[in-house]
Amino acid sequence: MKKSIDAELKKNFQIEFNDESLLDEALTQASYVNEHPNQGLKFYERIEFLGDAVLQLIVSEYIFKRYPEMPQGKLTRLRAAMVCETSFSQFARECHFDQYIRLGKGEEKGGARNRSSLLCDIFESFVGALYLDQGRPAVEKFVHTVIFPKLDTGAFDHVIDYKTNLQEVLQRDGDALIHYDLLNEAGPDNELDFEVAVFDDKRKLGVGTGKSKKIAEQAAAKDALQALRVKNV
Amino acid sequence: MKKSIDAELKKNFQIEFNDESLLDEALTQASYVNEHPNQGLKFYERIEFLGDAVLQLIVSEYIFKRYPEMPQGKLTRLRAAMVCETSFSQFARECHFDQYIRLGKGEEKGGARNRSSLLCDIFESFVGALYLDQGRPAVEKFVHTVIFPKLDTGAFDHVIDYKTNLQEVLQRDGDALIHYDLLNEAGPDNELDFEVAVFDDKRKLGVGTGKSKKIAEQAAAKDALQALRVKNV
Repeated sequence: MKKSIDAELKKNFQIEFNDESLLDEALTQASYVNEHPNQGLKFYERIEFLGDAVLQLIVSEYIFKRYPEMPQGKLTRLRAAMVCETSFSQFARECHFDQYIRLGKGEEKGGARNRSSLLCDIFESFVGALYLDQGRPAVEKFVHTVIFPKLDTGAFDHVIDYKTNLQEVLQRDGDALIHYDLLNEAGPDNELDFEVAVFDDKRKLGVGTGKSKKIAEQAAAKDALQALRVKNV
Repeated sequence: MKKSIDAELKKNFQIEFNDESLLDEALTQASYVNEHPNQGLKFYERIEFLGDAVLQLIVSEYIFKRYPEMPQGKLTRLRAAMVCETSFSQFARECHFDQYIRLGKGEEKGGARNRSSLLCDIFESFVGALYLDQGRPAVEKFVHTVIFPKLDTGAFDHVIDYKTNLQEVLQRDGDALIHYDLLNEAGPDNELDFEVAVFDDKRKLGVGTGKSKKIAEQAAAKDALQALRVKNV
């Protein structure tokens, strides 16, 4: 078991622990320690406490800088969507951490290995262990691989209002008048695809499609924001 | 106004901002911005969002390392006592931040300047500004002056169970038998002072006093922990 997580971490994330005992601790539940007394084993909870705070800061700082016009309320909602049991348990599964957790027999039988709350904890404890072993830069690199690309693939779009965000970005330099136009509707009646573009008074800023005009407008605003970001970088 | 906060920060904390606009932003409430439109002012809320996460991590990491045997549940309770409105608003007052907040007239009349929730926000936004301006080391230094000494003066003692903590530390090397003995009771009947010492099987580990035996025992355990820490450093 131990060999394969090392191999997976190296292959998928170029991570090699200096202190392997930190990785062991991060992947061990109290129930396993209780079943193996006198082995000096530690369970993940303390490291998880630290990992949670590490993730909070790295995610907060990233979205704070990436969305310079996003008000606090939205930053808080976005962070809550990124730093939550649903997200972290999914990331833990993607990283295959679920396969390497050391559980007591009762917990194993009870299905703990697939329990989102445990997987969320393990994602945090892994990050805590990596932070203790190699410091913040290693965690940043890991999080830039596992979490942040999902901002671009739309995993957290339900909490980001791109239309408002675009309006705010454009208003930095004074009033901004933008409008959304329907370019195209295609497909069978019950499965229409809408194509929408967003314009300011001079040019087309972005284009998006979706199953409703509202979704297509959000996609167009997101496209415009990405184009503006590329231009401004 | 601006001059004196600069002077206070320099004198009390050896802090000088490179980008003064960050400090302005950290001390400005939305109500003030609303009353002074077209001046390009920003209010503290976004920076506070960041400062909150910075404080969470620095406090978490400090207590994680300082109390290496403290279980997660207690770490979480201790962090909650340190990172909370009551504590942060008190720190803001100690730093005299309350004197420098820029408020709208209505908020001023409504007593916002003394409102704990606002002072807590301002403490976080100050930390966020310092972090953006000078990075984590400057915040660490500030927090080591403003927050961490209070762990030694007992400000958070109500959430730390020193007796259990001492037991846990001593058990690291196997079973530990300790006992608490009353050394002295003094004072008038309704205001007794108790003096208690804690011993292991060989020696006296610490001494403490208090208005009850329970308080004196906690003080003795705390004294023993400090003595052990000095010995182990």
